[in-house]
Amino acid sequence: MKLVRFGNAGQERPGLLDNEGTVRDLSSHVKDFAGEALDPTYLARLRSIDLSELPPVAKGTRLGPPVAGTRNFIAVGLNYEDHARETNQPIPAEPILFNKTANCIVGPNDDVMIPKNSSKTDWEVELAVVIGRRTRYVSESDALSHVAGYCVCNDVSERAFQMERGGQWMKGKGCETFGPLGPWLVTADEITDVQKLDMWLDVNGRRVQSGSTATMIFGIATLVSYISQFMVLEPGDVITTGTPPGVGMGMKPPVFLKAGDEIRLGIRGLGEQHQRVVAFRP
Amino acid sequence: MKLVRFGNAGQERPGLLDNEGTVRDLSSHVKDFAGEALDPTYLARLRSIDLSELPPVAKGTRLGPPVAGTRNFIAVGLNYEDHARETNQPIPAEPILFNKTANCIVGPNDDVMIPKNSSKTDWEVELAVVIGRRTRYVSESDALSHVAGYCVCNDVSERAFQMERGGQWMKGKGCETFGPLGPWLVTADEITDVQKLDMWLDVNGRRVQSGSTATMIFGIATLVSYISQFMVLEPGDVITTGTPPGVGMGMKPPVFLKAGDEIRLGIRGLGEQHQRVVAFRP
Repeated sequence: MKLVRFGNAGQERPGLLDNEGTVRDLSSHVKDFAGEALDPTYLARLRSIDLSELPPVAKGTRLGPPVAGTRNFIAVGLNYEDHARETNQPIPAEPILFNKTANCIVGPNDDVMIPKNSSKTDWEVELAVVIGRRTRYVSESDALSHVAGYCVCNDVSERAFQMERGGQWMKGKGCETFGPLGPWLVTADEITDVQKLDMWLDVNGRRVQSGSTATMIFGIATLVSYISQFMVLEPGDVITTGTPPGVGMGMKPPVFLKAGDEIRLGIRGLGEQHQRVVAFRP
Repeated sequence: MKLVRFGNAGQERPGLLDNEGTVRDLSSHVKDFAGEALDPTYLARLRSIDLSELPPVAKGTRLGPPVAGTRNFIAVGLNYEDHARETNQPIPAEPILFNKTANCIVGPNDDVMIPKNSSKTDWEVELAVVIGRRTRYVSESDALSHVAGYCVCNDVSERAFQMERGGQWMKGKGCETFGPLGPWLVTADEITDVQKLDMWLDVNGRRVQSGSTATMIFGIATLVSYISQFMVLEPGDVITTGTPPGVGMGMKPPVFLKAGDEIRLGIRGLGEQHQRVVAFRP
């Protein structure tokens, strides 16, 4: 299933994409895609619903992030072999983890705002994992049973804030609008092999990132298990799993986003995002 | 005012400490200390309530963390001059920020659990700031008007996870039970000078930390303003502001927590916490 949340920001309702690509209003069946409603067992029950009986949602209705109630938004750094090689950095011995803020999450096609005093706002196409049930010290073999599904994430990053302002990376990772998620939360059963998905990102029509989840250093099951050794993950928590080669910081000379730029990105089977980059709004 | 949340974990109700030290049940006036109820303007209205008309809460009732709905739990590293000197580290040019997980927050007297595979669980008495209203690019001069109040925080830390597992600090900062908060959320109006508060921490009756918020490198107003340049803070978000000298890691030889240890800590005017350290519970 491809789950969506549609409507104005902060007032989204749950929906489901039917086979013709129409969003169907699911709010008579589920309150929101948050908390217990994300449990894989619960989600499986939605599969029996006759979509043709659900009201269609008007084309052009805004999509919000496909998950609500996120508290932990964890990101993995330097998790693609080819990206590590490209930047001449050693392959990490263990996953590198950092935080994005939960309230930087926006819809897949919402504007990305350049922060005040930013000079190095950058893009990163990533596969994000949405946690479906409480996850604490889970084994790798059991890890995927805790996953509600997957979605596209643009791990927008301000490189000067991230790396030139002292200490940890989080200063450049959780700015307002820095977490587009969606368009869909694709339930795990719909993905045959999550480690074989092509991914790409274009800036102003030019392909800058192309890669595949096949070159991840630490796969999804390993990451979910690993992270759960250090914290308790809850339903709605999001793990974004690193980016393949082609970020602006790695170009020679580096290229960063500016107001007016258009970003498109996608992952096979998980849909596409489109963001307009806008100037800082006081 | 000294605001509390009392009752079993996950079912806490709001209360207020009266002048005799009795907790009064405030749930007929406010649903919880979360979201809009934390706005300083709203909190000011609670001051007119006649506490003697509110039902007293039985002595010995558990206290939970005095704030609910936290999404961002931000911490500041190396923020005390005397602690920086003690560890031979340079004074940071800008605040060092890292994340704790929101779901590691527990009550002030709840058990602290040694994580699985931990060898270096450590303590840190800190003053925590609770945000009362949406905070985005706030100036230093306006920053304190966004603060609901202050409380004691034990920024429990696993040093091997934090510093020997690659990359960022967060692996050792957000483990289950690593965020005791409370006992009270002391409203900002009740603290004459938040930069002149004595603080201390005892392990098994031995004083290991003693300091004062007077030796903070970056004061509260600076921190709130600074953090709001990188992310949007929401009501209920918590900033814990660094620790004075005397953590276990800094001792020669280092000393870490073990099951059976008793921790007591406090800050003048903000009350005291008491935690029992317990072994890992599968």
